[in-house]
Amino acid sequence: MGKIGVWLIGARGSVATTAVAGAAAMRAGLAARTGCVTDLPDFAGAALPGLGELVFGGHDVVDTPLVKRAEHLVAAGVLPPALPGAVAAELAAAETRLRPAPSGGGRAAIGQVTADLAEFRNGLDHVVVLNVASTEPPVDPHPAHASLAALEAALDMDEDVLPASASYAYAAFRAGCGFVDFTPSTGARLPALDELARATGQPYAGRDGKTGETLLRSVLAPMFAQRGLNVLAWSGTNLLGGGDGATLADPAAASSKNASKQRVLDRNLGGPVDGEVHIDYVPALGDWKTAWDHVLFEGFLGARMTLQLTWQGCDSALAAPLVLDLARLTGKACRDGVAGPVEEFGFFFKDPVGAGPHDLASQYAALRAWAHR
Amino acid sequence: MGKIGVWLIGARGSVATTAVAGAAAMRAGLAARTGCVTDLPDFAGAALPGLGELVFGGHDVVDTPLVKRAEHLVAAGVLPPALPGAVAAELAAAETRLRPAPSGGGRAAIGQVTADLAEFRNGLDHVVVLNVASTEPPVDPHPAHASLAALEAALDMDEDVLPASASYAYAAFRAGCGFVDFTPSTGARLPALDELARATGQPYAGRDGKTGETLLRSVLAPMFAQRGLNVLAWSGTNLLGGGDGATLADPAAASSKNASKQRVLDRNLGGPVDGEVHIDYVPALGDWKTAWDHVLFEGFLGARMTLQLTWQGCDSALAAPLVLDLARLTGKACRDGVAGPVEEFGFFFKDPVGAGPHDLASQYAALRAWAHR
Amino acid sequence: MGKIGVWLIGARGSVATTAVAGAAAMRAGLAARTGCVTDLPDFAGAALPGLGELVFGGHDVVDTPLVKRAEHLVAAGVLPPALPGAVAAELAAAETRLRPAPSGGGRAAIGQVTADLAEFRNGLDHVVVLNVASTEPPVDPHPAHASLAALEAALDMDEDVLPASASYAYAAFRAGCGFVDFTPSTGARLPALDELARATGQPYAGRDGKTGETLLRSVLAPMFAQRGLNVLAWSGTNLLGGGDGATLADPAAASSKNASKQRVLDRNLGGPVDGEVHIDYVPALGDWKTAWDHVLFEGFLGARMTLQLTWQGCDSALAAPLVLDLARLTGKACRDGVAGPVEEFGFFFKDPVGAGPHDLASQYAALRAWAHR
Amino acid sequence: MGKIGVWLIGARGSVATTAVAGAAAMRAGLAARTGCVTDLPDFAGAALPGLGELVFGGHDVVDTPLVKRAEHLVAAGVLPPALPGAVAAELAAAETRLRPAPSGGGRAAIGQVTADLAEFRNGLDHVVVLNVASTEPPVDPHPAHASLAALEAALDMDEDVLPASASYAYAAFRAGCGFVDFTPSTGARLPALDELARATGQPYAGRDGKTGETLLRSVLAPMFAQRGLNVLAWSGTNLLGGGDGATLADPAAASSKNASKQRVLDRNLGGPVDGEVHIDYVPALGDWKTAWDHVLFEGFLGARMTLQLTWQGCDSALAAPLVLDLARLTGKACRDGVAGPVEEFGFFFKDPVGAGPHDLASQYAALRAWAHR
Repeated sequence: MGKIGVWLIGARGSVATTAVAGAAAMRAGLAARTGCVTDLPDFAGAALPGLGELVFGGHDVVDTPLVKRAEHLVAAGVLPPALPGAVAAELAAAETRLRPAPSGGGRAAIGQVTADLAEFRNGLDHVVVLNVASTEPPVDPHPAHASLAALEAALDMDEDVLPASASYAYAAFRAGCGFVDFTPSTGARLPALDELARATGQPYAGRDGKTGETLLRSVLAPMFAQRGLNVLAWSGTNLLGGGDGATLADPAAASSKNASKQRVLDRNLGGPVDGEVHIDYVPALGDWKTAWDHVLFEGFLGARMTLQLTWQGCDSALAAPLVLDLARLTGKACRDGVAGPVEEFGFFFKDPVGAGPHDLASQYAALRAWAHR
Repeated sequence: MGKIGVWLIGARGSVATTAVAGAAAMRAGLAARTGCVTDLPDFAGAALPGLGELVFGGHDVVDTPLVKRAEHLVAAGVLPPALPGAVAAELAAAETRLRPAPSGGGRAAIGQVTADLAEFRNGLDHVVVLNVASTEPPVDPHPAHASLAALEAALDMDEDVLPASASYAYAAFRAGCGFVDFTPSTGARLPALDELARATGQPYAGRDGKTGETLLRSVLAPMFAQRGLNVLAWSGTNLLGGGDGATLADPAAASSKNASKQRVLDRNLGGPVDGEVHIDYVPALGDWKTAWDHVLFEGFLGARMTLQLTWQGCDSALAAPLVLDLARLTGKACRDGVAGPVEEFGFFFKDPVGAGPHDLASQYAALRAWAHR
Repeated sequence: MGKIGVWLIGARGSVATTAVAGAAAMRAGLAARTGCVTDLPDFAGAALPGLGELVFGGHDVVDTPLVKRAEHLVAAGVLPPALPGAVAAELAAAETRLRPAPSGGGRAAIGQVTADLAEFRNGLDHVVVLNVASTEPPVDPHPAHASLAALEAALDMDEDVLPASASYAYAAFRAGCGFVDFTPSTGARLPALDELARATGQPYAGRDGKTGETLLRSVLAPMFAQRGLNVLAWSGTNLLGGGDGATLADPAAASSKNASKQRVLDRNLGGPVDGEVHIDYVPALGDWKTAWDHVLFEGFLGARMTLQLTWQGCDSALAAPLVLDLARLTGKACRDGVAGPVEEFGFFFKDPVGAGPHDLASQYAALRAWAHR
Repeated sequence: MGKIGVWLIGARGSVATTAVAGAAAMRAGLAARTGCVTDLPDFAGAALPGLGELVFGGHDVVDTPLVKRAEHLVAAGVLPPALPGAVAAELAAAETRLRPAPSGGGRAAIGQVTADLAEFRNGLDHVVVLNVASTEPPVDPHPAHASLAALEAALDMDEDVLPASASYAYAAFRAGCGFVDFTPSTGARLPALDELARATGQPYAGRDGKTGETLLRSVLAPMFAQRGLNVLAWSGTNLLGGGDGATLADPAAASSKNASKQRVLDRNLGGPVDGEVHIDYVPALGDWKTAWDHVLFEGFLGARMTLQLTWQGCDSALAAPLVLDLARLTGKACRDGVAGPVEEFGFFFKDPVGAGPHDLASQYAALRAWAHR
């Protein structure tokens, strides 16, 4: 079979660079497949595109060379010191396939993205567009979001009705590509874009990669529920540096993410749960993140007990292998002609599309079954 | 249908007293069903004995009155202040059905237990013997454990080949009762006793109730496995007071418990995991327990990350509702004529009998299916 | 010598009730002097008023009887179950000396407070007014705060220029009483009130009792400084229920408290330190408080290291003995004729008046020396 | 003034290599003085030898080149990547002054050490011998330890009465050098060696550098004491890799260290405190160390509260600057003709010699005063 193109929105960021460099290292046998779900024994035999079949390109608003970014990630303790040198050729090859992100909006921006995707798609079997750019604030509702016809009409009037992430989803579907949103942004999550995905026969998935605190919540909340323990309050504080920290220091952007985090609790615990989530920008943490969660719960005869968690992780190292997993899985979805939302990818997301389960164990079982079907 | 007798080994201890008082409170509508798994909506419609069908009795080596013990548990913050008074009649009724534990071993002790069980069983539909006594040290292997014939021969020679917990299991089966071991002791876990359970047509389950640190491990270890993250070391320290703390301060007794705790990791992570577990006796903690776990794991491209947990729980409040769940479920097993080990009860135990799953989510699904069959 | 009156603003709150009930219990020999600084061996021989010389009265905006409040504190796990009964007579005696807080402001309110204080003072040697009411938002600057003359002029014009806490301080000084502010409110911290304290010959101290997170910061920050370790960020989250939690959920009120907390760091570490402090209202925590602090610091050759703290305390139990300490110490100040701010009481406060040291060890030494002088 | 020689026992270990490389980097202006106590403003004007006056040599049982060790420390994240190259000349110079540690004991070993010290001392003003080797088990009491005469007699009989660390102290004093023990080993802590130090006019200090958990305990225990809070139990678990972790996995060696750790609590809290300390060897942690402390304490009217701490530090980075501080300070002691124990260096040690204070604040004040005298 032919190659699968992976078009990264935010292609020069930490997550994208780690994914591209890591894929090259693993292909060359320089690194183990640690953190890669689709390389687990449970996925052996599933007809997924291999790492060697992936070709990387993408958009970014900045122009830092990939190799420079990789060296920065070495200094930050994310990538091993020898890695950038060992995969320099692959980084250089990907570099030739990166394009500047469009600066404006509307039909013009969409046109540029569609053209870039068409050029990239040339010679490839399928293309998956993957959003790993910075988090956007939540979008204001607009009547043009309700149907494809209304959206097209608004775009024809040159109205600026789509946030950047949704413009990319629109362009992806129009260019015959699958779309995955790894951020909490709008992406394809509008009725008009769902309609477009089905009409153009393209799969989509998202949103907001589940890499740390929420991952923990998706196994711990079911544990409380299955033991009949009553969660009285679930509070959390996240300290993070890096670009994501700076973005999320803006309350508007953070509100998208916080909503996803609490939703995982509500859905697993059967109703709204008390407690706030804070995201603090601590520049000195660099690419690392610390999350503290405090759970106050009630047991038999009203006994009050607590669970506290501290998670210290490197977001890029946690996200990058999942980006590769999603590229391979969505590549298979493209090959299989899946159109519309892929609910079975909920395992990867804080706010999965569709009505699938919200506990990690069921999500894993659903993903595994999907991969083998 | 008739009543189900629940015969508690360690009937005057914290767990047993909390279970008996709590069952009375819930029956009287004075307390919610918090912490009771078999009262969850997922178990609605399963043909389980109701709390009102349970009749409590048991053995203990001490003779503290139940009501005194309940008052102690109020002072320790385990039971609500008003509870002992509100359920005084039920405590007094149970008090009349408690018997002194036999002091010696061998046929004589077994004979006394069998006689007590026969007396208790009178007028009841079935009886479940539940071990909630202090943890024993691991038993030394003995040829008499290998088969029922060898065991009977050794008992006939008056050899002391069974630890107390196993004598109770023997007596339970001979008296036509089911048996559940909530402790890490030997209980029914000898080939000779398995043979006896099948021969007498009695169900058994165990061992070592999963109430805190190991409960967490049974959801977190699968999470690491399903994300392809490589656990390098999982270390734990448990601080506990109360009778259990004093018992487990003895390294021999603790070794039974620690083996169960690490086994949950090994089985979920596919091999032995580095790291030690400590159990410290801190008398001032009383009935409360604090567990700290530190997990060092490796992600994509070898990035090192950590998860820390602190669990602060009241063991009696965590264990008592599970004791009631197991009484109801084993009561159903008796009614249904199940003989031998019930693997589907693995949800409740650190070291479940049989070859069932070791992650909590699968154990929950198996339990639920069993209850509804 | 005669009695010392202790007039509590917020006399029916958790802190005041715990202090009054606890003083009675200690006087009766029913409770140890745990948590009482002035009862430490280091203070033996200091000429301080004894607990038996204290007489309690006060103002409150609510009218819950003290004994009712004490019973609520038993249910919340703050007071031992037998305490309210054992000190019922003392609570009843204090009850007769409580007065409703004035509802308005200006000269009228001040007049009522002064009259209540004059009545209370009758037969007592000295009176200390102690503010343990809810936290106020920071006050807007006003020209009338700059001098006593300007303040009197504004009051004569019936301008509402003083927040409640400052009105109490004004009234206290006018009534010939000392004043202590245990909250982060304005209290006596205005130039006009400092002038009044000196003019009337009354001592004052404050503000914002240092009972948990900030107490820890006042020993840990000096440790980092004395080891030459460079604190890059100090972040904190406080979860609290109770009335204080509800008040501090208001960002305006919280801002007073947060400023005090970070100031302790800045002063001990020699400059502004990165990091935010959150105060979350978690009603289910009741009178308990959990604080998590995360310190990121840099050592030799730039090595990055962290310290995390979790403090789980009962604010009333931490504050009440310090209130008694301050009553005794300020009573001595009154007897000794000390006028104006008592900098040596900085040991007790987050934001101490004056230019004293900010590390706990030096503050303790200063307090001890003062007590013995 | 002339140069001060610094003779390191364990000169090729992590701490020694970090100290030597770090001193070179700071001298060259390539690194800030972070973590160096004697470079704080409080020590400005004290007549201490400068870093540029220090000359490094030492013994080790292994022969890994210093530059190799430095590269290993880069890989472990302890030293910045560029450092070994930048200070290669200084590492090579120190390399020429390293000698193999004697393999046996008794007079022969002492003789070799004395000869090596005499050679090193040539051209230097004074020499300080600093023990940073692996921890020894506690030594068995022997009559020869009681006096210098008894010790000399036993050595003359070729009896093996001194552990290695004490042989080094003996040789140091005989060679006219000061001695500092940064480990929990015996070192100079025998009456016979104290006598020798005084007889030869040499200063000594120790033992067991206070770099993490015990440092915290030396500020937190006084805080509890000064607030009259009653510590019921103080428990700790230390996870560490590296050579020190492997050594301390041996319970005999660990017992030296644990005794020091609890002693700090006992002395600050006025009596023995409940609670155990564990040291677990976790190889994957490398040069990093995680300590968790759990403090259960009682406040006013018996309220139970807790403090938990997690310290994540790099032991080499914490110890190395203190080694440089001690070299400078002991160099001054040599110059000033101080003979016998220097109690004022207690700030640096878990188990300080003499009867000095045990709280960090008082120790800091004592050190500062000593430096300026």
